Amino acid sequence: MDSKRKPRIKLTLKKRLGNVGDSPGMIHIAEDAMKPQINIFSYNEKELVTSKGTNIDVILEQFKTCDKHYHWIQINGLGDKKLIESIGEHLKINPLVLEDITSSHQRPKFEEYDDYVFAVSRIMRLNGDNELENTQFSAIVKKHLIISFEEDHEERFEAVKARLKGGKGAIRTAGPGYMCYALTDTIIDQYFVILACIGDNLDGVEDQLYLKADKSIMYNAQHLKRSLIVMRRASWPERDKVNDMIRTDSPLITAEVKTFLRDAYDHCIQIMDLIESYKEITSSIIDLYLSMVSNRMNEIMKVLTIISVIFIPLTFIAGIYGMNFSRIGADGKTVIPDNMPELYWNHGYVYAWALMLLIAGVQLYIFWKKGWFNRL
Amino acid sequence: MDSKRKPRIKLTLKKRLGNVGDSPGMIHIAEDAMKPQINIFSYNEKELVTSKGTNIDVILEQFKTCDKHYHWIQINGLGDKKLIESIGEHLKINPLVLEDITSSHQRPKFEEYDDYVFAVSRIMRLNGDNELENTQFSAIVKKHLIISFEEDHEERFEAVKARLKGGKGAIRTAGPGYMCYALTDTIIDQYFVILACIGDNLDGVEDQLYLKADKSIMYNAQHLKRSLIVMRRASWPERDKVNDMIRTDSPLITAEVKTFLRDAYDHCIQIMDLIESYKEITSSIIDLYLSMVSNRMNEIMKVLTIISVIFIPLTFIAGIYGMNFSRIGADGKTVIPDNMPELYWNHGYVYAWALMLLIAGVQLYIFWKKGWFNRL
Amino acid sequence: MDSKRKPRIKLTLKKRLGNVGDSPGMIHIAEDAMKPQINIFSYNEKELVTSKGTNIDVILEQFKTCDKHYHWIQINGLGDKKLIESIGEHLKINPLVLEDITSSHQRPKFEEYDDYVFAVSRIMRLNGDNELENTQFSAIVKKHLIISFEEDHEERFEAVKARLKGGKGAIRTAGPGYMCYALTDTIIDQYFVILACIGDNLDGVEDQLYLKADKSIMYNAQHLKRSLIVMRRASWPERDKVNDMIRTDSPLITAEVKTFLRDAYDHCIQIMDLIESYKEITSSIIDLYLSMVSNRMNEIMKVLTIISVIFIPLTFIAGIYGMNFSRIGADGKTVIPDNMPELYWNHGYVYAWALMLLIAGVQLYIFWKKGWFNRL
Amino acid sequence: MDSKRKPRIKLTLKKRLGNVGDSPGMIHIAEDAMKPQINIFSYNEKELVTSKGTNIDVILEQFKTCDKHYHWIQINGLGDKKLIESIGEHLKINPLVLEDITSSHQRPKFEEYDDYVFAVSRIMRLNGDNELENTQFSAIVKKHLIISFEEDHEERFEAVKARLKGGKGAIRTAGPGYMCYALTDTIIDQYFVILACIGDNLDGVEDQLYLKADKSIMYNAQHLKRSLIVMRRASWPERDKVNDMIRTDSPLITAEVKTFLRDAYDHCIQIMDLIESYKEITSSIIDLYLSMVSNRMNEIMKVLTIISVIFIPLTFIAGIYGMNFSRIGADGKTVIPDNMPELYWNHGYVYAWALMLLIAGVQLYIFWKKGWFNRL
Amino acid sequence: MDSKRKPRIKLTLKKRLGNVGDSPGMIHIAEDAMKPQINIFSYNEKELVTSKGTNIDVILEQFKTCDKHYHWIQINGLGDKKLIESIGEHLKINPLVLEDITSSHQRPKFEEYDDYVFAVSRIMRLNGDNELENTQFSAIVKKHLIISFEEDHEERFEAVKARLKGGKGAIRTAGPGYMCYALTDTIIDQYFVILACIGDNLDGVEDQLYLKADKSIMYNAQHLKRSLIVMRRASWPERDKVNDMIRTDSPLITAEVKTFLRDAYDHCIQIMDLIESYKEITSSIIDLYLSMVSNRMNEIMKVLTIISVIFIPLTFIAGIYGMNFSRIGADGKTVIPDNMPELYWNHGYVYAWALMLLIAGVQLYIFWKKGWFNRL
Repeated sequence: MDSKRKPRIKLTLKKRLGNVGDSPGMIHIAEDAMKPQINIFSYNEKELVTSKGTNIDVILEQFKTCDKHYHWIQINGLGDKKLIESIGEHLKINPLVLEDITSSHQRPKFEEYDDYVFAVSRIMRLNGDNELENTQFSAIVKKHLIISFEEDHEERFEAVKARLKGGKGAIRTAGPGYMCYALTDTIIDQYFVILACIGDNLDGVEDQLYLKADKSIMYNAQHLKRSLIVMRRASWPERDKVNDMIRTDSPLITAEVKTFLRDAYDHCIQIMDLIESYKEITSSIIDLYLSMVSNRMNEIMKVLTIISVIFIPLTFIAGIYGMNFSRIGADGKTVIPDNMPELYWNHGYVYAWALMLLIAGVQLYIFWKKGWFNRL
Repeated sequence: MDSKRKPRIKLTLKKRLGNVGDSPGMIHIAEDAMKPQINIFSYNEKELVTSKGTNIDVILEQFKTCDKHYHWIQINGLGDKKLIESIGEHLKINPLVLEDITSSHQRPKFEEYDDYVFAVSRIMRLNGDNELENTQFSAIVKKHLIISFEEDHEERFEAVKARLKGGKGAIRTAGPGYMCYALTDTIIDQYFVILACIGDNLDGVEDQLYLKADKSIMYNAQHLKRSLIVMRRASWPERDKVNDMIRTDSPLITAEVKTFLRDAYDHCIQIMDLIESYKEITSSIIDLYLSMVSNRMNEIMKVLTIISVIFIPLTFIAGIYGMNFSRIGADGKTVIPDNMPELYWNHGYVYAWALMLLIAGVQLYIFWKKGWFNRL
Repeated sequence: MDSKRKPRIKLTLKKRLGNVGDSPGMIHIAEDAMKPQINIFSYNEKELVTSKGTNIDVILEQFKTCDKHYHWIQINGLGDKKLIESIGEHLKINPLVLEDITSSHQRPKFEEYDDYVFAVSRIMRLNGDNELENTQFSAIVKKHLIISFEEDHEERFEAVKARLKGGKGAIRTAGPGYMCYALTDTIIDQYFVILACIGDNLDGVEDQLYLKADKSIMYNAQHLKRSLIVMRRASWPERDKVNDMIRTDSPLITAEVKTFLRDAYDHCIQIMDLIESYKEITSSIIDLYLSMVSNRMNEIMKVLTIISVIFIPLTFIAGIYGMNFSRIGADGKTVIPDNMPELYWNHGYVYAWALMLLIAGVQLYIFWKKGWFNRL
Repeated sequence: MDSKRKPRIKLTLKKRLGNVGDSPGMIHIAEDAMKPQINIFSYNEKELVTSKGTNIDVILEQFKTCDKHYHWIQINGLGDKKLIESIGEHLKINPLVLEDITSSHQRPKFEEYDDYVFAVSRIMRLNGDNELENTQFSAIVKKHLIISFEEDHEERFEAVKARLKGGKGAIRTAGPGYMCYALTDTIIDQYFVILACIGDNLDGVEDQLYLKADKSIMYNAQHLKRSLIVMRRASWPERDKVNDMIRTDSPLITAEVKTFLRDAYDHCIQIMDLIESYKEITSSIIDLYLSMVSNRMNEIMKVLTIISVIFIPLTFIAGIYGMNFSRIGADGKTVIPDNMPELYWNHGYVYAWALMLLIAGVQLYIFWKKGWFNRL
Repeated sequence: MDSKRKPRIKLTLKKRLGNVGDSPGMIHIAEDAMKPQINIFSYNEKELVTSKGTNIDVILEQFKTCDKHYHWIQINGLGDKKLIESIGEHLKINPLVLEDITSSHQRPKFEEYDDYVFAVSRIMRLNGDNELENTQFSAIVKKHLIISFEEDHEERFEAVKARLKGGKGAIRTAGPGYMCYALTDTIIDQYFVILACIGDNLDGVEDQLYLKADKSIMYNAQHLKRSLIVMRRASWPERDKVNDMIRTDSPLITAEVKTFLRDAYDHCIQIMDLIESYKEITSSIIDLYLSMVSNRMNEIMKVLTIISVIFIPLTFIAGIYGMNFSRIGADGKTVIPDNMPELYWNHGYVYAWALMLLIAGVQLYIFWKKGWFNRL
C-alpha cells in the first residue's frame, strides 16, 4: 500500500494561468514552459527548404526567400510570449486563438476564422512509469502556411518529415490542409499504440487474475480504467473535431483532404470502440476479482466452521469428564454414587471416545449432505 | 460520527417565498435578504463616472448627468422591494423578470424581451468550511444599460472594475452586451478555481487512501461528490444559457460579443468535462476504499481462522487428557486398565506433545499449500 | 419489521375500469368515485357570478343568465356518468376525451381538438402518513369556457378563487386559457411544497445517519426514493405538456398566456432538477449507510478476532497443564519423570503465567503493528 | 433450490426456421405449428355474414357471395404452408411478408406496400404457472379486407366479435383499418391485465419482504424482473409501430382511425411507464432484501461475538485453575508454595467467581457503551 | 483456477500493421495472412461460368470471355499484396479502400465512391472451444461486378452458390447489388446461429445455477457476457451500414435490393434485441449467483453461531467444575468449605447437567423465537 509505488494518472486540472476576471485574449506563459525551437519546412513539388531558429526573424526570412512554397512552421515549446505575440501580429491571428495556444488544457476543437482555421488536438504518450502524459497540439492553417505548436521538444513527426523529404505523394502538393491532416493522423495513430499497450496490460492483469490473484489487481485495474477515461476524454472531442473539419466550407480544407479525413474519422470511431470495450473488460476483471475475494472468504469461513463445529461438542464432552465432582462427600466418608459414575465404568474412556467419534461422524455426514465440501 | 463536524453540502431547496397559487409576477423579498447597495458605473470611450447609493434616485440622477454613456448599475442585496419595483417601472421590465430576480433559486437562463434581455447565472463560492455557497446573479441588458443583481455585498468583480478603470479594450466601447459577457465570464472563471480546489481535495483523499485509509474517506468522498453534483447542476444550464446568447438575434448581443461568448462556451464545456472526470475519480476512490475494507476483513478472518483452526484440535487433545476417568473402579479396588492407559505410558506426555505438533504442522502445511499465507 | 408501520408508496396500477376489447370512448365510473359537486364562476371585467349544484341544469341555467361572461365550471368528483355524458353532448366533446376524464390514470398531456383543447395534470398531495396521493386533474377549454375535473372534494384552488374575487389582474380579463394556466400553475406550485417536505425528510434521515443510524434508514431512504419516482413520473410529462401548450397554434392559448406558461415551464425544469438532486442524495445516503453497516461488521469482527486470538493459545496452555499424565506408572510404582515435569518445577506456575503473558503481549504488539487498533 | 419448481421466463430464441443463406421470402413452417382454422366475418352497415373453414376455398367463396362487404379473415394456426402461399398468390402479397407471418419471432412493426399494409404485434399471455407466453399476431390490411394471423387457436377477440355482432358504432362502418386498430387495441389492453397481475405479484413479494423474508424473494423478484424485460421488449416497438400507423400516408388508415390510434399510443406510453416503475420497485425490493440479509448477518455476528467474547476470558480463568501444578515437588516431599497458592486460599473459589463476574460485567458495559445492543 | 482451461474471448486489438505516421493508402499485409484463392462466378439469366485461380490473370481472362455477364469474384485470403494492388489498378479503386480491405480490424461500414461502392462486415464464428472468431468481409460493387474479400479459406457461402447454380430467382438477374445483399444476409443469418448457441449456453449456466452452483458459474457468465460484447460491437455498426445501403442514392443498390435490405435491417434489429436480452439474463444470473453465495455464507454463519453459542456457556460450566480449588488448605489440614462445595453435593453432577441442559434449551428457544432456524 505504498503510495509511492503506485503510478497515478492525474486527471486533475493543471494550474490555470491568469486570474479570475482577466481580459479575454491575454496570453499567459506557464513558468515551466519550455523555450521554443522553430523548424521551418518550405516545400513545393520541386524542392524542400528547411531552416531552424528560435525567434520570429527566421520565419520572416524564410517567407522572403521561399515565396513560391508552402510553409510548415513547427514550434516546439511555448515559453516565449513575445514570439507568440509577434506571430499573432504578423499573421493577424485573433488574440483568443493565441490564448488557446498557450493555455494547454484545451479540448480538441476546430474553429474557422476569416482567412485561417485553428485546430487543437491532445497528444498522448505513455512514459516510463506507464503513466499517460497528455500535452496539447495546436495548428493554425492559412493559405500557404501551417504553424503547429507543441508543448515540448519531443520528436513526434519523424514519419511525416521523412515523407516530406521523400518528396512523393500528396504531402508535397496538397497544401497546408493536407499537412494539418497528416499531423493529426499521426497523433491519432499514436492512440492505437497506447491502446495496444493498455490492451497488453489488461491481458497481463487478466492472466494474473487467473494465475495468482492478489490485491494489486484492484489497483492495476483502477489504474487502467483511469487511463481509459483520459483517452476517452481526448478521443471523443477529437472525433467531433475531425467531423467539423469534414463538414467545413473553408477552402483551406480541400475535398481531397476531406477524403483522407474521413479515414481519420473512421480511426477515431475505432479508438472509441476499443476504449469502450476495454472499459467493459476492466469492469469484468474487477467483478471477477471481487467474486474471487468473496469466494475466498467463503472458503475460509467454511474451513473455520467445519473444524470449529466438529470440535466444539467434543471439547465440551472432554470438559465434562474433566470435572471434579467428588465421589466422596465433603465429610470424607459419604459415597455419592451419582457423581460422575461414568468415570468408574469399566470401559468409560472407550465409550467416551466412541461417543465423540460418533458425534464427529454425524456432523461430517450432515455437512457432506449439505454439500459444504464441494459446492459454491 | 459527530454530525456537527461534517460539513454538509445542502442540496435541498431554500424556503420558497410566496404561497401556492399566488399571482405570477408578485415580488417576494426573503426576510433575511440584505439591504441593497447600488454602484453605478457610467462610461464611454473617454470617461468613467461612478457613484454609489441605496435607492432609485441615485440611478435617475446619474442617467441625467451622463446621457452619452453606457451604464452598469450593480445592485448588491435584494432586500428592498420598492427599489426593485421602481426599477421595473422606470425601465418597463416584465413583472415575471422582477419575480425571477428576487426568488433566488432560478436556474441559469437567457430570455429575450422586446427591448431588453435577461440573464441568470449561479455564483459559486467555497466558504471557510469547504462548503459550497450557491447564490444568484441576474442581469438586465438594455440599449445603453446593464443592471446586475447579486444577493450579498461580496466584491466579486474587482478585475472587471479594474479593466473598466484601466479604460482600454472592448470593455469601454463594446456596450452593455460585452459587460454582461465580462461579468458572466468572471463567474465561470471562478468555477475553475473551485474545481481546482475540489481537485486538490480529491488528491488529498486519494493520498489518504494509500497512506492511512480510515472511514473518513467515505464521508469525504461523498462530500466531494455532492459538491460536484451542485457544480454540475449549475454548469449544465450555464452552458445552455451561453449557447442561447450566442444564437440570439437580439441586437444587444453583438457579433463581437458572440466571439467572446464562444470562448466562454468552451470554458463551460471544459468545466463540465472536469466535473465528469472528478465524479469518475470519486467513484474509483470509493470502489478502492470498499475493496480495501473487504480485503482488511478478509485478512482479519484469515488470521482468526488460522489461529483458531490450529488450536482447536490441540485444545481438544489437552481436554481429553484432562479427563478424570478413573483407573480404580467405584469400589476402590477394581483396576480398569482401559481407562486412559496413555496417562501411565512411559513417554505419554511427550507423545501427546508430538501428536499436537504433528497436527499443527499438517494444518500449517495445508494452509500454506492453499496459499492462505500470501494470496488475495 | 412490522409491515403495518411502514407507509408504502403504491406505484402499482389502480384497478382499470372496463374490459379488454371494450369499444373506445366508453365511460366507466369507478365504484368508489365521489358524487360530483359543481361550482360555476361566471366572470368578466366587471362582475363575478357564482353558483353551485350537482347536475347539468345549473350549468345551462348559468349559461343563459351570464351570456357575456367567461365561465369556469369546477367539477369535484367523477361519480355521475350521466353528468359527464350530458356535458359531452352539450359541448360536443369527443368520447375519447370523456373516457380520459373518468379513467383516472392518465399521464399529463395536452390535446387540441377542433374548437377546444384538453389538458391533464396529476395532483400530488402528501397525506397524514407521509404517503403521496396522486389524483387526476383534467380541463376542457373552449372559447368562453373552462371545465375542470377533479377526483375528490378537496379545496385546492382557494388562492385562485381569491384572486378571481379580488377582481384585478389578468385573471378576470385574459380568458379561459389564462384560467387553465392559473390552475396548472397552482398544481405545479404544490409540487414545490411536497419537494420541500421530502427535502426535510431527507435532511432528517441524514441527521439520523450521523447521529444514531439504525436499519430504519434503509426503509426511509427507499420510501423517499419511491416518492421521488412518483414525482418524476408526474413532472416529466407535465413539462412536455406545458411545452406543448407553449407551442400550440390554438387561439385558445393566447400569446399573453404563453408568456406565463414559459414561467411555469421554468418551474417544471426546476422541479425535475430538484428531483434528480434528491435522488442522488438518497443514493448517497444509502451508500453511506451500507458502508457504515460494513464498517460496523468490520469493527465487530476485529474485537472478536483480537479477543479470540489472544485467548485461544492461552487457554490451550492452561489445557496442557490441566492434563492428568501420571508421574506414577499404571503399576502404582514406576516413576515416569517424563510425564509433565513442569508441574513439579519450583516456579512452574509462575513460569506458565509468564509464558502466557508473553504470548499475549507478542500478539498485541503484532496487531498494533498491523494497525488493527486504529485503521479502516 | 429445486430447478423444477421455479417457473422460468424463457427469453431465449425459438429455434429459427430455415438455413443460413436461404433465399429471402421462403416460407418455413414450424413442425409443431397448429393447423389453421379460418373464421370469416363479412360485414357492412346492414349485415354480418360469418363462415368457417380450413382452406382457401371458403375464403374465395365468401368473397363471391359478399361482394359489397368488408371482410375480416381470422386465421388461427400457421401450420399449412399451402394456405399461406395461396393467400399470398391471390392477394399478391410480397413473399417477404409471408415469411414474416410464418417466422414467429418478429418485432412489432408496420410496413406499407403498394396496395396493402402489414402490421405485427406480440400477444402476451400469463399461463397457469405465471409464465409469460409470447406469440405473434400479424395482419394484412387491404382495401376491403383484413386478414389476421395468430399462432394458436386461443379465442382472444371475443369482445371485438361481440361489438361486430352488436352492429353499432365505427366497427361496422369504418373499414378494415379500424378493425386493425380494434384488434391491436385489444392486444394492448391485455398488456394492462398482465401488468396488473405483475403488480399484484410485486405487492405480494413486498409483503413477504416485510412479513417473512426468505431467499425465495430473490428468485421471485428476478422472475418478475424478467417478465418485465419481456414486456418491455414487446411494448417499445409496439409504440413505434402505432406511431408509424399514425404517421402513415396510406389511405387504408383513415384520419378517423388515427384519432383512435392516438388513444392506443397513449396506452403504449402508459404501459412503458408502468414497466419502468415496476422495474424500479423490483430493484428497490432486491436492494431492501440484500440489506436485510446483510443486517441479519450483522445481528448473528453480534450475538456470536458478544457471547464468545464474554465467555472466552472466563473459560480461560477456569482453565487456569484447572491446571495441575503440584504443591508437592517431584520428590514427593518439597513443598512448592509458588504453585497455584490461590487454590488454597480461604475464599479462593469465591474470589474466582467474583473475578469472572467482574470481567463479564466490564465487557457488557463496554458493549453497551459502544451501542452494540441497539444500533444498526 | 487454471488459466489454460478457461477459453477467453480476446477483445484486444490485433497487432496493427504499418507504423505511426505512414502515408494513408499504404497496403500492409500481415505476416500470417493466407495466400489468396480466387473463385470467379460469371452469370446472367442464361448461364453460369465459373473458374478458379490465384492471380489477376484468371480474372482478366474471364472478363474477356464473359463480357455479357455479371461477375462475382470471391477472394479468400489476403496474403498477396501484388494481387490487391493490381485489382486496385485495373478497377481504379481508391488506395484507402485497398488499405481498409487488408487491415482486418475495420468496423462494418458502407462507402460510396464515384462508380463503385464499398462494404465491410464482420464474420463471426464459434470455434471448437466456444470462442468467437471475428474476421473481416469486404466487398467492392461495380456496375457488373462484385469482388468479395475474406481473410481465410473457410467456405461460408455454399447456400448462395447453390442458389446461383439453381439459376432461379433474383440472384441471377438482380445484379451485383443483390449479390452483395445475399452475402451480407448470409453473414447476418450466421449471427442468429451463434446467438442460439450462446442462448443454449446461458440456459445451461442457469440450469447449473439451480442444480449445482459452483464458482465456474461466474467465469462462464463473464465469458458469455464478453461474447455478447463482441457480438454487439459487430452488430450495431452492421445495422448502420445496412441502413446506409437502404438510404444510398447509388444506382448500384436498386430499389428491388433495398426491399430485401429492409428485411436484413429487421434482422439486425432482432439481433441487437436478442443481445440486449441475453446481457440482461447474464446480469440476472450473476446477481442470483452472488445472492446464493451470500446466502450460503449466511447459512454457514448461522450453523457456526448456533453451535458455538450453545456450547460456549456449557463448556464454561464444565471448566468451572474442572477447577482444582482445594477443600484442604495449604497446610494440609484446614478445611475450606467455601471452595467448590458443589463438588461434594449429593446430586452435584446431576444438577450440573440439569443447568447445562436448561441453558442450552433457553438458547435454542431464543434462536427459534428469533427465527434463526427458518428465515432468510
